[in-house]
Amino acid sequence: MKPTVGLIGLGLMGKPMGRNLLKAGFPLVVWNRTAARAEDLVSEGAKLGANPRETAAAADVLISIVSDPPALEEVLWGARGAMEGLRRGSIYMDSSTISPDLAQRVAAACGERGVEFLDAPVTGGDWGAKKGELVFMIGGRAEVLERARPVLEVLGKKFFLLGANGAGQTVKLAMNLILALEVEALAEALALATSAGVPGEKLVEVMQSSMARAGVLDVKAPLMLQNEYAASFPLRLMHKDMRLALELARQQGVTLPAAAAAYGTYSAVKDASKDDPDYSAVARFWSKSAG
Amino acid sequence: MKPTVGLIGLGLMGKPMGRNLLKAGFPLVVWNRTAARAEDLVSEGAKLGANPRETAAAADVLISIVSDPPALEEVLWGARGAMEGLRRGSIYMDSSTISPDLAQRVAAACGERGVEFLDAPVTGGDWGAKKGELVFMIGGRAEVLERARPVLEVLGKKFFLLGANGAGQTVKLAMNLILALEVEALAEALALATSAGVPGEKLVEVMQSSMARAGVLDVKAPLMLQNEYAASFPLRLMHKDMRLALELARQQGVTLPAAAAAYGTYSAVKDASKDDPDYSAVARFWSKSAG
Repeated sequence: MKPTVGLIGLGLMGKPMGRNLLKAGFPLVVWNRTAARAEDLVSEGAKLGANPRETAAAADVLISIVSDPPALEEVLWGARGAMEGLRRGSIYMDSSTISPDLAQRVAAACGERGVEFLDAPVTGGDWGAKKGELVFMIGGRAEVLERARPVLEVLGKKFFLLGANGAGQTVKLAMNLILALEVEALAEALALATSAGVPGEKLVEVMQSSMARAGVLDVKAPLMLQNEYAASFPLRLMHKDMRLALELARQQGVTLPAAAAAYGTYSAVKDASKDDPDYSAVARFWSKSAG
Repeated sequence: MKPTVGLIGLGLMGKPMGRNLLKAGFPLVVWNRTAARAEDLVSEGAKLGANPRETAAAADVLISIVSDPPALEEVLWGARGAMEGLRRGSIYMDSSTISPDLAQRVAAACGERGVEFLDAPVTGGDWGAKKGELVFMIGGRAEVLERARPVLEVLGKKFFLLGANGAGQTVKLAMNLILALEVEALAEALALATSAGVPGEKLVEVMQSSMARAGVLDVKAPLMLQNEYAASFPLRLMHKDMRLALELARQQGVTLPAAAAAYGTYSAVKDASKDDPDYSAVARFWSKSAG
């Protein structure tokens, strides 16, 4: 019989992950702060957990994927939190993007309860979540990863074990730093070229024939040319991840000049945007209207 | 009969370009400030011009590719400069990376002499130059590009006509800004991950499975992991191109925060490096030894 999976957090990423688990035949118990978000999955066969604690208590494997560190702390240690529900011998895997610090604190709390923990943030966006083709960056023990693998295989296509607990989050923050700077780079280059009278389309066309070509820019560039910023990965979350990266850098005594500068442009666009745009909307920094 | 090509500047890029022209059967006259650099091509059949003026005077199509704006100004307007040799009805194509401003001044001077000018900087590195697979970013008139095409086809694989004179340089500066920031992004991400105890190899492995993957990083990342910085595109030239991009931005009233910050790290490594490393050596900013 397949293990029961608990899933906390049914946002852009969590919901399609849950759907894939249901399709693969895993008994699924879900919980989300805004209960309405659980309705679709419940109608497709998931059980609704009463609260994070009960959701954790029902699970052989608990997965959480929430928007930021405070949301995770609330879910784990708030009233009827998941931590007090987790059963000895179960596995808990957090796929939120949080600080390596917090991941290590969660790992320690799990250890005290006899629960195995993996920090397992993902990349691949909502598209990867829907296709079950996420890439997992994992901190933890290899045996635990092997035990969790039947569940992971449903959700992703690559599983990188990067070190002890926290290492998954460290790499995730470093990866998002690269993505944020690649998009910033294109946005700055477009601002430069268009200010000097060259249409952005021309720059993108040249870029796509060059070594500057990047996976994320293949996807974002056409949308940026059209000021089309429906969120695939919301700017507010990228902004949060950049902050976490810069905090980690400060803890480690490392200076990241371009990341710090780009954080300034992302911050400005976040503050000025009235919608909830994709992070490629950082290009609005150079436009008159900030959405 | 094939037109005679004049070629001024026989560095990392110019020399393989000249070799390809010889192989394709174009009569070739070459000049280089350091004459010894011309020996190989002369032994392969090129004529040595006495000076830039004579080189230009011998050419139906003159090509220059020198390291920076002062070098180009010296070659064009210094003693026995190329500008006074250029023949009415000939084509002059500059493949150096310079400011759009200077390209427009050169175009105006050519116009007065009845010479057609293209600003035609390239991307693709010394590898692209050797293979005859450069990408040309061109400012100028379409008819002139068509007349120059038989020569260009020997040197490159793509020819983007981007606007009037200066547009080629604008796009080149924007392109190099993207490349410089992509490499900066990886260098910052590596500094962050390794400071937190994750080996750089792990980060690169994840990156290569993700949307962060970029053409330039596929090439540079393995070298950066080994602190291997033999120059394919020298840091001192990327540094110069970033300066030109930031100057253009200032002229246009555009602020480029990440480019300005990255210029700081490139500057620091340029000042501290005793060799003449590739621009990916910007990663040295985070290492103890600066070469």
